[in-house]
Parts: sequence; structure tokens; C-alpha cells
Amino acid sequence: MSSAIEHFHPFIPAGGVGSRLWPLSRADAPKFLLDLTGSGSSLLRSTYDRLVDLGEDGVMVITGRSHAPAVRQQLPECAEVDLVLEPSPKDSGAAIGLASAILARRDPEAIVGSFAADHVIEPTEVFHRAVREAVEAAATGRIVTIGVTPTSPSTGFGYIRAAESLGVETAPSALKVAEFVEKPDADTAREYVRSGEYAWNAGMFVAPARLLLQHLEASQPELHAGIVEIADAWETDARDEVMDRVWPTLPKIAIDYAVAEPAAAAGDVAMVPASFTWDDVGDFAAISRLNRAVDVDEVAVLGKNKRVMTDNASGIVVSDTSRIVALIGIEDIVVVDTPDALLVTTQEHAQRVKNAVDALKKNGETDVL
Amino acid sequence: MSSAIEHFHPFIPAGGVGSRLWPLSRADAPKFLLDLTGSGSSLLRSTYDRLVDLGEDGVMVITGRSHAPAVRQQLPECAEVDLVLEPSPKDSGAAIGLASAILARRDPEAIVGSFAADHVIEPTEVFHRAVREAVEAAATGRIVTIGVTPTSPSTGFGYIRAAESLGVETAPSALKVAEFVEKPDADTAREYVRSGEYAWNAGMFVAPARLLLQHLEASQPELHAGIVEIADAWETDARDEVMDRVWPTLPKIAIDYAVAEPAAAAGDVAMVPASFTWDDVGDFAAISRLNRAVDVDEVAVLGKNKRVMTDNASGIVVSDTSRIVALIGIEDIVVVDTPDALLVTTQEHAQRVKNAVDALKKNGETDVL
Repeated sequence: MSSAIEHFHPFIPAGGVGSRLWPLSRADAPKFLLDLTGSGSSLLRSTYDRLVDLGEDGVMVITGRSHAPAVRQQLPECAEVDLVLEPSPKDSGAAIGLASAILARRDPEAIVGSFAADHVIEPTEVFHRAVREAVEAAATGRIVTIGVTPTSPSTGFGYIRAAESLGVETAPSALKVAEFVEKPDADTAREYVRSGEYAWNAGMFVAPARLLLQHLEASQPELHAGIVEIADAWETDARDEVMDRVWPTLPKIAIDYAVAEPAAAAGDVAMVPASFTWDDVGDFAAISRLNRAVDVDEVAVLGKNKRVMTDNASGIVVSDTSRIVALIGIEDIVVVDTPDALLVTTQEHAQRVKNAVDALKKNGETDVL
Repeated sequence: MSSAIEHFHPFIPAGGVGSRLWPLSRADAPKFLLDLTGSGSSLLRSTYDRLVDLGEDGVMVITGRSHAPAVRQQLPECAEVDLVLEPSPKDSGAAIGLASAILARRDPEAIVGSFAADHVIEPTEVFHRAVREAVEAAATGRIVTIGVTPTSPSTGFGYIRAAESLGVETAPSALKVAEFVEKPDADTAREYVRSGEYAWNAGMFVAPARLLLQHLEASQPELHAGIVEIADAWETDARDEVMDRVWPTLPKIAIDYAVAEPAAAAGDVAMVPASFTWDDVGDFAAISRLNRAVDVDEVAVLGKNKRVMTDNASGIVVSDTSRIVALIGIEDIVVVDTPDALLVTTQEHAQRVKNAVDALKKNGETDVL
């Protein structure tokens, strides 16, 4: 192994409400702040714990300013300089760019890693091994995505087609990337999985901060100038003043367009395949899968409610109330019982919860969003 | 017509919680006190309104003492002497026997009519016509049940097999009764309906009070003596004292065993068939049937909640809360949303709600019963 890992700085962009998990997830209680696995830890806390041993000096978190109290409470060891609070949402380009710029200023040789706040990954050892290889591969001047070996022909994810070995001695699994492809239809997804050439694009990547910022500067010079100005002030008294002044002027753009696509076009992208189990907890069907251990009858119960009773029922109940919840003669049901909103759907239709949230927004019923 | 109708005195035994309608129905909010049809009136109030024009001097109500405040509120015009408050439940023999004894004391020629508090009947005119014929037939010295022409081969009701005409000029539809039969299996029920000889036993009957009391005296002398003692004191200052002393000593027996069976054996029973629509509101499937007018999407909404939203859903929601209730992609669902209990089932399994109530009772969770 090289000394690259000593320059590794992971960070967590923690954004997005997770509308498909409404009414559990809300604008002020987004998915990443919730314990959705019954583990006793939020998804953010679990993600932080999974990363903290890899970094030399902590893990940076980028999130909305309104979530600061909850994040500080969940991550008391996170230093204030490692907590990037966005005054307003600006998409992933600004968040990931700013984190990279701050870390590059601290360590010019920084290799950064971006990991979503709301994914579930097991086992940690397999994940660590993949990240370490990705760091080694990144040290050769590549943006390295971690590709998850597919366990089913999912139509919900993008895929990465791998090419030949990258030929890096300290990262023997690392492969060149032939192409990134969008979410496929079911037949295409089956073909991808059968071929063995494709991995799920889980949105995790490792890259030299300098390389990432070079691509950002080339494709989005205005965004690059703004984040560099904020990063220059970050560890000074001027931090808040500069953040408040510059952040609102930054263009809104996803990191895929700002960095990943130009980097791929330049042949700067590689992939480390990994076979840990990965779940992006996309809907209540996922929550049901992840909570099989605490069944009452065939029903997974998530939350503090100890008064769930079932009679020939299966599915999931999420409830922190003390109400009796009685389920009789229903299969694959999803019941989410909160003080001001009740959702009843099925695991099959769990993806459509987002439509309901959109409808509520349209109707102005924002008190429950 | 004879003058029999001038001696007609209807009464309403209002008992039973209606466990199959939990958690809407409770020990302190039984089925008959609820508006289950979206009409704005409780079942009791609707029953009272349906009967009041038939009686010469009001309608008597027999119910549990704990329901007195609610009944007085729902029926402000009901005189105190027409409100029989049971200190404890004693089954239908005591309730119907006492009402008959009180009415026989007021009017020795009384023809009484017993009508459950929690049935839905339409249209009232057809019901009135049947009751009037039943009164005429009863005046010839018969206990006359009203048999409902079946509209489906229900296995949930007992049936009455009719014989030849009773031959009463003022009650041309009245028939002799060949036999009463218990709830049949599905094949038998289909055969009953096909034959045209059977009617549903809806538990409504009209009888000379004197005849009813004669049968009661013969079959249950102790019960008869007790109710006569209470009836003798009813319109005196001793009413409460005698009621409190005698009622607890009365035997518990259903009116079917105490009166109907011996009367049938003596050839004293007749039937008036009637083709009004009749629903005993036995479970949430019935509530769904009865509330088709107020649909949101394909969902019947009962209660004050104006925040029910649906997406490809059908069934019924009962809710008086102000919570958002979102139903997505589910068919024939039953959701009953109360402050301390939530029921989720299907119309198909609506009958099993009673089992859940039994289970709660067994587990000591009586706070929600």
C-alpha cells in the first residue's frame, strides 16, 4: 500500500427529505436523521461510524442550516469546522465542491470521498476494503466510483459498465469504466446483471481533491470561484460572513454534470467493484426488508409503539404513538402512524408515496410535510 | 282497519356494544349511539324517528344506565317514564318483558312492538305498512314477526319459513309460520332464497302485551314476577327503589327462549313479510355499503375528518381526527382512526374485528374497549 490513505478525508453530503418515506420523513426530520433500521442509530450516525476509522482527522458533514441542532446532537464529536451548514439548498455540485475545497486547503494532497448520509451498507469490513482500494486507485489521478455488484435486476438505479483492469498494483480490483448508463428498463436490467459487466452506481466516489476541483473549474468556473472564496475564509473569523455573502450566488448544479461527466469524457474515471450489501432505503418496502428482526406475527414494527396487534397480517408498522394499532387480514401492508398524519399503503405501491407528498404540496397542506 | 293501531306501543331495546365495529364502537359509545350512515343522526335517533309516528304516546327505550346521558341528549322528547335504565345487563328477556309489563299496566289492550336500536331500514313507508299489518295480525292473538324478503343468500341471519295465509282481513299479507331456522350454510341459504318461502328473521316483532306476558309467566315465572313488581311501581315514587332491589335478582335469558319458542310451539306466531331494505350494520363492510354517497375517490369517508386523500384506493375511512389520512394503492380497505386506537383491515375480514376485541379483553387492554 502507498501512503495515500493518510491523505484520505471522507465527507457526507446530508441532504434530501426522502419524500417516499413520508409521513415518517418530513422537511424538519429528513430521512438521514431517522433510525430506519431499528439499530438505535440514525442513518447519518451509522454512515459517520462507518467512515470515521478511514479518515485521518474526522468526517466532514454538509447539510442544511436548519438541521444543525439535530446533526450536532447526533454527532457530538463532529468539529464545528467539519460541519458545513448550507444557508439554502444548492444541489450536490456546491456541497461536494465546497467540502473538497476546504479539505484541499487543509491538505494539498487530500483524497476526498463522498458518501450519502442515508444508505445502509453491510458488512463494514467489505466496505472498508473497497474504499481503501478506491483511495489507492484515486492516488494515480482518477475519480474512482465504488460499483456495487448487483443482486437483482433493479430498474431503480443507474449502472456502470466496467472495462479492463486499471493496472494499479495496490488496487488490484480497480477497473477502467466503459460507460455510465441511466436507469434501465426491466429487460435491459436483466441483461446487465446476466452479463456480469455491470455494477450499480451507488453514488459513492473517491478522488484527489485537486483533480475534482480542476474539473469543476473547467466546467463551472463561477461555482469554482465561489467555493474557493468560501474555503479560503473557512478556518478564519470571516467564515460566516463570506458564507452568507457568497453561497446565495452559487449556481445550482448536480455533481454528475459539473464533474463526473467531464471527468469521464477525459478518461479520468475508474471503478472499484464491491460486493457488500447496499440499500438506499428508497421506500417503505426497503424499511420492511431492513427490519425483519422485530416482527409481531409477520409484521415488522418500527418505532416505540408496543401496542401493535395483528391477526393474519404481514407488512410494516411505523409508530411512535401509544395508540393500539390493530391489523387484521391484510398482506404486505404499510402503516405509518404519526401524530398528524397517517399513511396506509402496500409495499408494492410504496414508491407512489412521493406522488402523495406532491399532491399535499400542491394543495397547500404543508403543515404535514 | 280495526282500532288495534290505537293501542300500539313501540319500544326499542338499545343494548350491545357492537364489537365488530371497534374501535368506533366502545363500551361507553355503543353502536346504537353512533351515526354510522352519514345521515347526521345516530342509529337510535333514526330508529326512534321511524317509530314515533306509529305509536299513540311516544316510544319507550330500554338501555343501560351508563348510557342515560347520551340517550337523553339524543332523544330530548323521550319522557322519563319511557326511559327504562337497566342497572346491569340482563339479556333481552328482562328488557322486553319489563317494557311490555309497564305498557300493559298503562293500557290493558296494549299491542307492543320491539325494534332493535341499531338497524337501518328504507323506505320508512314500506316499513310502516308492514308494522301496521303486523299490529292488525297481532290483534287476533298472535306474536307477529316481520320477515324481511331476502335480497341475497346471507349466512349471517336466521330465516323464517312461511306457511299459508293467516286469513286476517285487515292484514292480508300475514302468513302462518312453518318454522324458524338458525343461520344456514351457503348452499342451504341459496336454496332458501331460491324457494321463495323464506324470509330473514330481523328480530322485529309485534304482540299483544298480555299474550307476551302470559308466555313469559308460563316459561319464566320468577322473571315474570320480578318485572311485574317493577312495572307496578313504575309510575310511582317507588320506581328507583324497586328497580334497584328487584332488577339484580332477575334471571338472564334471551326473549327467544323465554317467549318466542314457547309461543311458536303453541301455534301463536305469525309473520308479515316485507320488502324494505334492511341492514343490521353488522360490520365495517356494512358501513361501507351504507356510505357510498360521500366518496373521495372510491373511498367512503365517515366522520368529521376532511383531510382524507386517496390514490387508487377503495374502501372506507372512519375518522373524527384532523390528521391527514393518505391511502395509496389499496382495495376494499377499512381504516378506523380514533385518538387511542387505529384499526386497519379489509371489508372481507371485517367480521374478524370481534376476535381482535376479544384478544384485547384477554390481554387486559380494556382502556381502549
